[in-house]
Amino acid sequence: MSSKPVFLVIGAGAGIGGHVAARFAAGGYHAVLARRSDEAGLARLVGQIEDAGGSASGTLLNAAEDGAIEELVERIERDIGPIEGALYNLGAQIGNRALEDTPHRTFELGWRLGCFGLYRLAHAIFPSMVERAKDGPHGTLLVTSATAAVRGNAGQHSHAAAMAGRRMLCQTLNAEFAPKGIHVAHIVVDGAVNSPDTLGKLLGDKWETFKSMKGEHGMIEPAALAETYWHLAQQPRNCWTHEIDLRPHNDVPWWNDNPNPQIDATAGGKGFAGPETGSSGIG
Amino acid sequence: MSSKPVFLVIGAGAGIGGHVAARFAAGGYHAVLARRSDEAGLARLVGQIEDAGGSASGTLLNAAEDGAIEELVERIERDIGPIEGALYNLGAQIGNRALEDTPHRTFELGWRLGCFGLYRLAHAIFPSMVERAKDGPHGTLLVTSATAAVRGNAGQHSHAAAMAGRRMLCQTLNAEFAPKGIHVAHIVVDGAVNSPDTLGKLLGDKWETFKSMKGEHGMIEPAALAETYWHLAQQPRNCWTHEIDLRPHNDVPWWNDNPNPQIDATAGGKGFAGPETGSSGIG
Amino acid sequence: MSSKPVFLVIGAGAGIGGHVAARFAAGGYHAVLARRSDEAGLARLVGQIEDAGGSASGTLLNAAEDGAIEELVERIERDIGPIEGALYNLGAQIGNRALEDTPHRTFELGWRLGCFGLYRLAHAIFPSMVERAKDGPHGTLLVTSATAAVRGNAGQHSHAAAMAGRRMLCQTLNAEFAPKGIHVAHIVVDGAVNSPDTLGKLLGDKWETFKSMKGEHGMIEPAALAETYWHLAQQPRNCWTHEIDLRPHNDVPWWNDNPNPQIDATAGGKGFAGPETGSSGIG
Amino acid sequence: MSSKPVFLVIGAGAGIGGHVAARFAAGGYHAVLARRSDEAGLARLVGQIEDAGGSASGTLLNAAEDGAIEELVERIERDIGPIEGALYNLGAQIGNRALEDTPHRTFELGWRLGCFGLYRLAHAIFPSMVERAKDGPHGTLLVTSATAAVRGNAGQHSHAAAMAGRRMLCQTLNAEFAPKGIHVAHIVVDGAVNSPDTLGKLLGDKWETFKSMKGEHGMIEPAALAETYWHLAQQPRNCWTHEIDLRPHNDVPWWNDNPNPQIDATAGGKGFAGPETGSSGIG
Repeated sequence: MSSKPVFLVIGAGAGIGGHVAARFAAGGYHAVLARRSDEAGLARLVGQIEDAGGSASGTLLNAAEDGAIEELVERIERDIGPIEGALYNLGAQIGNRALEDTPHRTFELGWRLGCFGLYRLAHAIFPSMVERAKDGPHGTLLVTSATAAVRGNAGQHSHAAAMAGRRMLCQTLNAEFAPKGIHVAHIVVDGAVNSPDTLGKLLGDKWETFKSMKGEHGMIEPAALAETYWHLAQQPRNCWTHEIDLRPHNDVPWWNDNPNPQIDATAGGKGFAGPETGSSGIG
Repeated sequence: MSSKPVFLVIGAGAGIGGHVAARFAAGGYHAVLARRSDEAGLARLVGQIEDAGGSASGTLLNAAEDGAIEELVERIERDIGPIEGALYNLGAQIGNRALEDTPHRTFELGWRLGCFGLYRLAHAIFPSMVERAKDGPHGTLLVTSATAAVRGNAGQHSHAAAMAGRRMLCQTLNAEFAPKGIHVAHIVVDGAVNSPDTLGKLLGDKWETFKSMKGEHGMIEPAALAETYWHLAQQPRNCWTHEIDLRPHNDVPWWNDNPNPQIDATAGGKGFAGPETGSSGIG
Repeated sequence: MSSKPVFLVIGAGAGIGGHVAARFAAGGYHAVLARRSDEAGLARLVGQIEDAGGSASGTLLNAAEDGAIEELVERIERDIGPIEGALYNLGAQIGNRALEDTPHRTFELGWRLGCFGLYRLAHAIFPSMVERAKDGPHGTLLVTSATAAVRGNAGQHSHAAAMAGRRMLCQTLNAEFAPKGIHVAHIVVDGAVNSPDTLGKLLGDKWETFKSMKGEHGMIEPAALAETYWHLAQQPRNCWTHEIDLRPHNDVPWWNDNPNPQIDATAGGKGFAGPETGSSGIG
Repeated sequence: MSSKPVFLVIGAGAGIGGHVAARFAAGGYHAVLARRSDEAGLARLVGQIEDAGGSASGTLLNAAEDGAIEELVERIERDIGPIEGALYNLGAQIGNRALEDTPHRTFELGWRLGCFGLYRLAHAIFPSMVERAKDGPHGTLLVTSATAAVRGNAGQHSHAAAMAGRRMLCQTLNAEFAPKGIHVAHIVVDGAVNSPDTLGKLLGDKWETFKSMKGEHGMIEPAALAETYWHLAQQPRNCWTHEIDLRPHNDVPWWNDNPNPQIDATAGGKGFAGPETGSSGIG
């Protein structure tokens, strides 16, 4: 058993998951890192945390498999310690695919990883968290989310439906459990993250070109993001954040289109939807 | 005095305002068309409505001038008839301007036309409307709005602030007056409208090129839009719409960015924000 | 084969589904009504449409069963005629249930009916619709949705996650298919509907009390709602609505809390969140 | 001249404004506190900051007066030092008032404090901030906002229209200036704040009862809120938050209605809007 409270990360790669695990370990938690594959990469992350003087352990997990999350939670509470906080960090992005190139199985798997897994994690950890929060520190469930949770782009059928379900589930979990002492935060990551294990793998040999295009400050550094995750977990009960967005300063927020006036003028960007809204302009 | 109920249009040009006036005149209302300038154009619109067998009258109005709207409302109720419905259709779009090119006076004028004028119209017409709605037909206030009411693009400082105020005012008006029998509808026009008096004037000699670029079905036809305005005014009290959006089928909704996967892939469009949201992808 | 184009209703009870089917039959379509159970009720709806001079047929359908929707679509296109429009009207509301009273199977079934079924319907009907829309009338997919698609209340874990997925899927479908001539409309029904087959069954013996509490104009009449569905399907390609909300005039919209100032004042309703936003008030 | 960078607070009372000023002073800034009235209270705040070893100065400011903000900014840059960060914290809440009890002057004053003042502050401080951000630390503009910025409740005509304008202005400022190195953050304070100078004054003799009703953890502590403001200002350029919400854990978020199932069941809360969305329920 660890003398420290446990912070569990579902989806612990070299990007957000690994850095958040490291940040919470540095803050006094025993971090449990769970990921689907790459045992060597997992051991490397755990080693880095321990080298930095933190406490951590890792395990492979197929979150889409029935009972896998539940079994892991039971094992942690029994063998390591009480789960005081958790990060649900599984993605379901598969790139842009036309509807006809999005098979039933893919759409369902997107939901299993993007939404159902979060429901199952909450189902498994909340009962004990609620008990402990009555006269102890509050519980925390941080949920990494994507732009697709708030708007559906072409080709994002599976991803957007899954992420939107994830977002609304965060709201229902918050509505039932915030008053019981569990802080649920839905974090909208609205930009590219410097994450070789996910975006890197998705872009493949385009990855290096992509990074150089983005330039300095042009991609979210997971270490910086982890500081915000940590801050959210430190907010006292009288002042909790449920939703927050983040992006690089030079990235275009999801609600804006190309801010170039020239392009707007010729393309009739929505910046020009205004004049149509009345026959009386200014001056 | 007209034997017909009055439908008042504030901002009656050759685009949305004129077509909505014509549609309500065809539906049995006496349409009162008010616009800031161009007496000849105004007379032409009134003439077209009368030629079609409808009843209408027009007046010039500087809505930004104190008392102008109030005086017009009083005159209509006294000389023409009870205002049963109204359309607030004034725009405040001035194109994209950097903050330093947006003087105090411009920002304030945007608010006067985009938000304050709507408050003043409601202030002036609602008391009588509420009285008449008690044992008569319900009152209607249709409000044309723009994409800028729901998202702020670069260069839209004056317009977005004004339109967002307009949108939220529609919500507070609806909250207080819907139970009293006044239907307030906020209509988000999310695309270019074929309106020579406004977008046409704004784009100037780019107008023809712009229209040809848009192609068939590529610009909202105000006559088509007017049918939706009319439908909203026909909804019975048990089934009212407060907010609705409209755009051409081939236009990109404000919440989507370029749907081209190639562009997304290289530009890191938000369609690709997903993989960063977890270190465990699909298969 | 029918000489009329087909309008397919998935979820055709005595409420929204049946009335929309009747409205489209009156408008010249052959309506195909599909519902999970109650063959007698189904026959009654078809009979009413035919008595009114319309054309319709009915079938029982378990939409949660693999292949069921696909098989139905194939059968209709082969034996009855081309599906020009469809309404996805399946609900997944099971009332408010705490997380611990929401089993895995329930959460998954909510998704199958609330989200996955819509994806499967679009997957099945869109390829032919796109072909026919190239040089014929555009296709239409109307999707009934609920408040839970835009906010997650306590106890709505299964329903909100499913409906939010439904909403975002409508956005991705619209992004890919609107330019190809298919009109996808997401209809947020934000109030109680006078629907004995659904809300009636859910409330059971509370149903009559509930209706009398609501009073005149206090519940959405499905016949009135059907007129708006019909209007949306008539919008030409240059002027399409993607999202619209509806509620009774005296109902409180989902974004408002109790409008009673007294209650706000004592309960610190969000109407009073303002003063905290700055130490300098007005006057 | 101060050797420290300046953090300017517009609306510095004993609540959010004063605590944020203190937090930034503790973090190494010279805090300039500006408020409309109560010179004694202002001196007290400055004294508390200095007693804690921080650097601060105060000034009275009527932000609604033309030129007042501009003159203050010029004076600070000339006499004290470069403004590296600022908080716009003016409120415009006047409680719930019916439209007929909301005079033109009140509606306009709400806009002047809630929206126009922010535009004027940005107009005054951004040019120098942009210059300095090119090869120095980025600039920061934190904007306290209210629930009324995202939804309009009954009686909030003036406040909601002003706050919505404030929110959308934050988006346009962010769109133009984030790429130039200025971090604009819109902070939605969605709950009652323990602020005697504002909510306290508004509620008057109801204040003590209100506080006791709220109980422990039931009101946002401005000191806790200030920690989140500070964190936002520390985010590096690759990872900026534009919008965040905060509330006490046991408060009902603005998008939720009463979570009590009993009440929902009898009042037809939106939790029950679902079943109407289809005639085929679950099981």
